[in-house]
Amino acid sequence: METLEVIGQRAREAKTELLLLGQKKKTEALYAVAEALVIHADEILAGNRKDTDAARENGMSEGLLDRLTLTVARIEAMAEGLRKVAALPDPVGSVLSMEKRPNGLLIGKKRVPLGCVGIIYESRPNVTSDAFGLCFKTGNAVILRGGSDAIHSNTAIVSVLRNALASCGISADAVQLLTDTSRETATAFMKLNQYIDVLIPRGGAGLIASVVRNSTVPVIETGTGNCHIYVDKDADFAMALEIIDNAKTQRLGVCNACESLVIHSSVLEEFFPQLVARLTAKDVVIRADARARAVCPQCEAATEEDFGKEYLDRLISVKTVDSLEEAIAHINWYNTGHSEAVITENYDTAMRFLEEIDAAAVYVNASTRFTDGEEFGFGAEIGISTQKLHARGPMGLEALTTTKYIIFGQGQVRE
Amino acid sequence: METLEVIGQRAREAKTELLLLGQKKKTEALYAVAEALVIHADEILAGNRKDTDAARENGMSEGLLDRLTLTVARIEAMAEGLRKVAALPDPVGSVLSMEKRPNGLLIGKKRVPLGCVGIIYESRPNVTSDAFGLCFKTGNAVILRGGSDAIHSNTAIVSVLRNALASCGISADAVQLLTDTSRETATAFMKLNQYIDVLIPRGGAGLIASVVRNSTVPVIETGTGNCHIYVDKDADFAMALEIIDNAKTQRLGVCNACESLVIHSSVLEEFFPQLVARLTAKDVVIRADARARAVCPQCEAATEEDFGKEYLDRLISVKTVDSLEEAIAHINWYNTGHSEAVITENYDTAMRFLEEIDAAAVYVNASTRFTDGEEFGFGAEIGISTQKLHARGPMGLEALTTTKYIIFGQGQVRE
Repeated sequence: METLEVIGQRAREAKTELLLLGQKKKTEALYAVAEALVIHADEILAGNRKDTDAARENGMSEGLLDRLTLTVARIEAMAEGLRKVAALPDPVGSVLSMEKRPNGLLIGKKRVPLGCVGIIYESRPNVTSDAFGLCFKTGNAVILRGGSDAIHSNTAIVSVLRNALASCGISADAVQLLTDTSRETATAFMKLNQYIDVLIPRGGAGLIASVVRNSTVPVIETGTGNCHIYVDKDADFAMALEIIDNAKTQRLGVCNACESLVIHSSVLEEFFPQLVARLTAKDVVIRADARARAVCPQCEAATEEDFGKEYLDRLISVKTVDSLEEAIAHINWYNTGHSEAVITENYDTAMRFLEEIDAAAVYVNASTRFTDGEEFGFGAEIGISTQKLHARGPMGLEALTTTKYIIFGQGQVRE
Repeated sequence: METLEVIGQRAREAKTELLLLGQKKKTEALYAVAEALVIHADEILAGNRKDTDAARENGMSEGLLDRLTLTVARIEAMAEGLRKVAALPDPVGSVLSMEKRPNGLLIGKKRVPLGCVGIIYESRPNVTSDAFGLCFKTGNAVILRGGSDAIHSNTAIVSVLRNALASCGISADAVQLLTDTSRETATAFMKLNQYIDVLIPRGGAGLIASVVRNSTVPVIETGTGNCHIYVDKDADFAMALEIIDNAKTQRLGVCNACESLVIHSSVLEEFFPQLVARLTAKDVVIRADARARAVCPQCEAATEEDFGKEYLDRLISVKTVDSLEEAIAHINWYNTGHSEAVITENYDTAMRFLEEIDAAAVYVNASTRFTDGEEFGFGAEIGISTQKLHARGPMGLEALTTTKYIIFGQGQVRE
């Protein structure tokens, strides 16, 4: 395979071309690439079959195998994703502000592509076309590093993407795949500061931690969500039951699912048995602290570790508190900066919770499951940032852009 | 000294308090702290004298010694800096947008403090109060790690800051200083992800590179500027001479000074001798490529290395090009993403240069020296970002904030 240096150099050349491509040409290309995915579905399925055969031989679990497997319908969904991104407004090129300074300089702030984006992800091959679509729409070259499990699928998909771009007269190097999936190459990739402007890891907590630890390229941390719901003393119980049920069980393996409950002690006796009934009916195992177990002894005992855990499973932890202050302190200590909700009819409680909780998304009386680019109205999502720099919360197209200052002078010099 | 863990924990507690302090209280505290610096100038000067005595013994150069030395006037300037920041509008708490979604959820994006900021800097002790002022104004706790050369100055300044805060009834831990200036502690500090939200290095290229290489905390890279001026074939020569003279010689050791010239071959013979006369009269040494030296043989020969160099000195490199494309390619290859200017009367050239140059600030017909928070109208500056994430170009108070989504629901759950 090519050295990372060569791949980086190609991306650098492609990004210059992409910057000048223009909105119309980018949109046309995205529709053409979507069409190509459908036309070449057989080749993609053939690649995917090699991966799934190998995965089965290696004893991959059913859940992971399902994420890895492509079908005609899933390829059509990938194409539809590209068409949807093609139809979104292009954020690149707008001037966000322009001010005249006392010396006559006109200083504008213009939205521009980041340049070259690196994406490191795991076994889901649909990320390959999704990430390409979002990066291409925003004028960025992208270098993809997928998992070794999906290497044949990704190679086939990227080959279709590249050929389709070339057919549109656009540099195929707008999207490149690292075919060497060794750990050494991944680590070297994370230090390619000269060529890569930002790295976005998409996957489990282990992958993200590894990228944060090893990368010298700026990283946008996505992902893990130990999301809390706090049932206040002034909660509407019926609403609390609906929201907790939804946030815990509507989909289990997602980062915006609720993993931890905090309950005010004054409502524990009345509310908690109702909640236990509702959740156990859906096979959710409840791990509660001693005070909650005194009310419902059928619950398992929660350990310190449970309060900090993202289960991604039919499990939830329960902590009892005596005040809003204690609830906020508990959540700010254990949360991962993702999504937190309060259920209350009390105005002051709602406003204080919104003000004091430190997370990307803070809710009053709604399910944490809404933290999502689609639900927030962004039309697309490259991930959910749990860090504070650059982008926080669901990231749409704008998160893949930066700004530059453009300054119009008439010979000004500094005194 | 306390362990980093303890320092981090204290900052975490302080940041919660700062979040709730409110604009009025923060402003009053900044004025009180400014006053305290002036009142306790003697203690600060005594600490500073220990540092300068030691520095002299160790043979520190005059330039560095000057940066390290405090005077009553310099302490008054530090206080005045705090008063200026106190008077600026507080960016924290504004809701930047709020949209109603089809399901009735009201989703707002609110500006909030980053939380805890780490600053790693070198010998100038005035950075200590400047950085505190900007972080405090934006509701952030700050942990400072200054150079060992300035340890007694920094200890004295931070002691004044902390006592003044305590007198206002505010946690002194809003500002903490690492008194252990060992390399090991610095490296551990750069990995304190649990407590620090962002690290900002302020200093030379070596310091910044070390932070980028070692930090697992998100970094805002500031600093190095290999700034170019391109003299186009359609340049106004008189304007070009004024701007280049200003950008090179008005102040030498700053990141927005011009270090590299690019000249269109068609104006080389007429323009370059005028430029050489102007710059050599100011003792600037010119390192030019072969084509430029054919016109002015008195120039030194430029090597490849010169084109990439930030001299911070009376030196400038010259590259001859045959087209705008070649000029843009040269600048995009060698620049550090700081500030680049074109001198031209040609509309198309100006617009293409603004569009295609990849840098934080791109100028037409003005000196690169304007890239500065004060000059851009931000009222204060924590540094100039040369990276693309979060903030690019001069960073004012807003760069020390992030956003969070606040969501007002009425029991919404996800379908």
